[in-house]
Amino acid sequence: MSNFDHLSIHIPKSHYPRVVIVGGGFGGLKLSRMLVKEKFQVVLMDRNNYHVFQPLLYQVATAGLEADAIAGPMRKLIKEYDNFFFRMLRVLKVDVESKKVSTKVGDISYDYLILANGAKTNFFGNDQIMKNAFPLKQLSHALDLRSHLLQNFEKAVLSNERAYVESLLNVVVVGGGPTGVEVAGALAELKGHVLPKDYPELNFRQMNIYLIEGTDRLLNGMSQNSGDKAHYYLDGLMVNVITGKFVQSYENNVVKLNDDTEIHTQTLIWAAGVMGSIIDGIPKELVEKSRILVNEFNQVNGFENFYAIGDVACMKSEKFPKGHPMVAPVAIQQAEHLVKNLKLQMQGKEMLGFDYTNKGSMATIGRNRAVVDLPGDIKFTGLFAWAVWMFVHLMSIVGFKNKFIIFINWLWNYFTYDRGNRLIVRFFNPTLKDYEENQSDLYTDNDE
Amino acid sequence: MSNFDHLSIHIPKSHYPRVVIVGGGFGGLKLSRMLVKEKFQVVLMDRNNYHVFQPLLYQVATAGLEADAIAGPMRKLIKEYDNFFFRMLRVLKVDVESKKVSTKVGDISYDYLILANGAKTNFFGNDQIMKNAFPLKQLSHALDLRSHLLQNFEKAVLSNERAYVESLLNVVVVGGGPTGVEVAGALAELKGHVLPKDYPELNFRQMNIYLIEGTDRLLNGMSQNSGDKAHYYLDGLMVNVITGKFVQSYENNVVKLNDDTEIHTQTLIWAAGVMGSIIDGIPKELVEKSRILVNEFNQVNGFENFYAIGDVACMKSEKFPKGHPMVAPVAIQQAEHLVKNLKLQMQGKEMLGFDYTNKGSMATIGRNRAVVDLPGDIKFTGLFAWAVWMFVHLMSIVGFKNKFIIFINWLWNYFTYDRGNRLIVRFFNPTLKDYEENQSDLYTDNDE
Repeated sequence: MSNFDHLSIHIPKSHYPRVVIVGGGFGGLKLSRMLVKEKFQVVLMDRNNYHVFQPLLYQVATAGLEADAIAGPMRKLIKEYDNFFFRMLRVLKVDVESKKVSTKVGDISYDYLILANGAKTNFFGNDQIMKNAFPLKQLSHALDLRSHLLQNFEKAVLSNERAYVESLLNVVVVGGGPTGVEVAGALAELKGHVLPKDYPELNFRQMNIYLIEGTDRLLNGMSQNSGDKAHYYLDGLMVNVITGKFVQSYENNVVKLNDDTEIHTQTLIWAAGVMGSIIDGIPKELVEKSRILVNEFNQVNGFENFYAIGDVACMKSEKFPKGHPMVAPVAIQQAEHLVKNLKLQMQGKEMLGFDYTNKGSMATIGRNRAVVDLPGDIKFTGLFAWAVWMFVHLMSIVGFKNKFIIFINWLWNYFTYDRGNRLIVRFFNPTLKDYEENQSDLYTDNDE
Repeated sequence: MSNFDHLSIHIPKSHYPRVVIVGGGFGGLKLSRMLVKEKFQVVLMDRNNYHVFQPLLYQVATAGLEADAIAGPMRKLIKEYDNFFFRMLRVLKVDVESKKVSTKVGDISYDYLILANGAKTNFFGNDQIMKNAFPLKQLSHALDLRSHLLQNFEKAVLSNERAYVESLLNVVVVGGGPTGVEVAGALAELKGHVLPKDYPELNFRQMNIYLIEGTDRLLNGMSQNSGDKAHYYLDGLMVNVITGKFVQSYENNVVKLNDDTEIHTQTLIWAAGVMGSIIDGIPKELVEKSRILVNEFNQVNGFENFYAIGDVACMKSEKFPKGHPMVAPVAIQQAEHLVKNLKLQMQGKEMLGFDYTNKGSMATIGRNRAVVDLPGDIKFTGLFAWAVWMFVHLMSIVGFKNKFIIFINWLWNYFTYDRGNRLIVRFFNPTLKDYEENQSDLYTDNDE
């Protein structure tokens, strides 16, 4: 008997057309919250029961914030609409011919399908790295990484072998985009302010933080000025920034770069790139570089009622010949725009083409240090940029309570130079299973 | 090659005598914080890197508080003493002859050994229940239970089979002590205020919460009046309180009581009892009913420098012929008293006998409902008792930030009737491994 024998996706029939939305990230959540107010039956499917504010994942990973503060339960975020149905399920397959999506517990038919299932970490086909590196795209990744880092320090205290201790303390971050820069900065601050107090027995001069970027500069999505400034800030924080190099292999706790440089570390954080999550069944000719080709209405090429938005969608235009950047504002704006278009379509009117409004981009490197690019070639850095970064992120996160708890945490961390969430709570993660099994004898007991 | 090849417990030699403390619960933490200020070398060993405030575990399990709020990292709680050494290790064996304790990564010798490793869940030898029930003694237990409960509701939405849905919704709590009463009350409030909004598709009249107690009344450690009042409150919250019965078996999702009553449930919460955690190597004649026999100085019978305090210790006296109750205040007071005695012993003076000051006991059943017994036969219940419960718990928890975050959460929950922490984040737990593996296909993906 399978575990799923009693389960199926029964959604009541409705006189409204059924919109199935796959993924509750920035795009899918926005879309759901707006569409439930219109004459649609909205079915949102996600494998997690919560929406997570991904830009702050790195702060969970580095013990600055609790996991619960950056996530909100999906059912709390959208409620009291009787045309809304959330299903905590992973969508395994799409059948665009018979208009249905499949899951482990059965199929569901749709009138409209909107894929908003975003992106996953791109390991560029390197299985060895995929198996051993830490991605940072999901809440469980952040908690896994936090536990792993702290556990390494606890193990370092137990060793007298210099080389082994260094491999425990060293951290290699791959990818010089915002995530890589932010996590490297946060680790440098942990090393500077928190760890020496926690571990007076360790010599943190033995801890080296590396940031490896394949191109010749950091923050490629931002201005040269911001990239340079981020580099300067990271230098000041003693992060070893290496540009123009890439990771060739990672085995036996050795990261090897393409110039044969070797770095001994038990922690490789992989923020080198993302790729669209392509669900099985989507015709191959519709996919280019792991993104689904859509027209200016986010319609998947050749379909009337099949849409894709956000990271997983590739809308080519004059301004964006390779599609839009894979960032939250694109997903949110496409969601808002698609709701308008669906209403127009329902009224038999012509849909309007999407036009992305770039509101700027930013990254924080550490306390009082951030870089901001605004449209119209406005750039600023330093304390004011850092305050802007905090304000924008605080305002963007869902829920008043989350805002408040994060604000308190940030105030606390700022004035005490502390990071309170230094708990090692091990998570179940299929990719880490061997690791967990080897560790478990040290700490756990099967009979309690 | 084992994972532990490079590891050992090297502690520097010191001219101070070395005290090894096993366990960082209420007793072990208090002891460590006080002893580091004296002329001892203090080595604290715990398999977790944090101290957890156990009385609030049930609120984490029922989505009222975030895990991080009720735990504090051990190294943060005791720092800036160069005679203090924390080792995140599980103690596997004690050798009282050669004065050392053993772990996976080697031995450590002691001048004084103090066992403060507390209690674990008592399944009364029933392996079937141990394998399938949820204990509530550790942080990971609380988070596992939270995820399990919420996942059951998500599954219930996917089923049309009434009996199956009821087995998903029903919860059986075993044990009418404070933990059982508090978790049953919190579940009843979830059912009343939060779940119907989250799951409008489910009929919560199908959800039954049972509280099973083997003796004829609740809260046996408190007055008859408080037990009766707790029973009355739980009745009002529609909890099915069953006294004078015990659980005989739990298999295939059926709880069977000794009168052959059958309850279908996929969630059995086991708060029916605790037993001392007896480490291997402790001579059998020193152990009675899984607690270590100690004299009035907390000295293990027959030893000069081997002590046990708190739940794991059994100090018989006229007032407590079976030993003290297994509660936090006993552990804390014994810790404080033992520090005094160790100082006296060092000075060659006579030690003083321990005398427990009962400051009262209390339990909360839900909003505005609690029971408090104070010494001198003072009892009160209701709103004031509830306010006292909250104040005492808030003041007892370590750390100003934890206090503040919990206070904010409580205020929020009180005024919104909400519980914000409804996230399903699955943890690794050896006892749940089969369960996790069966579930994982539904939600996870091995390649990201």
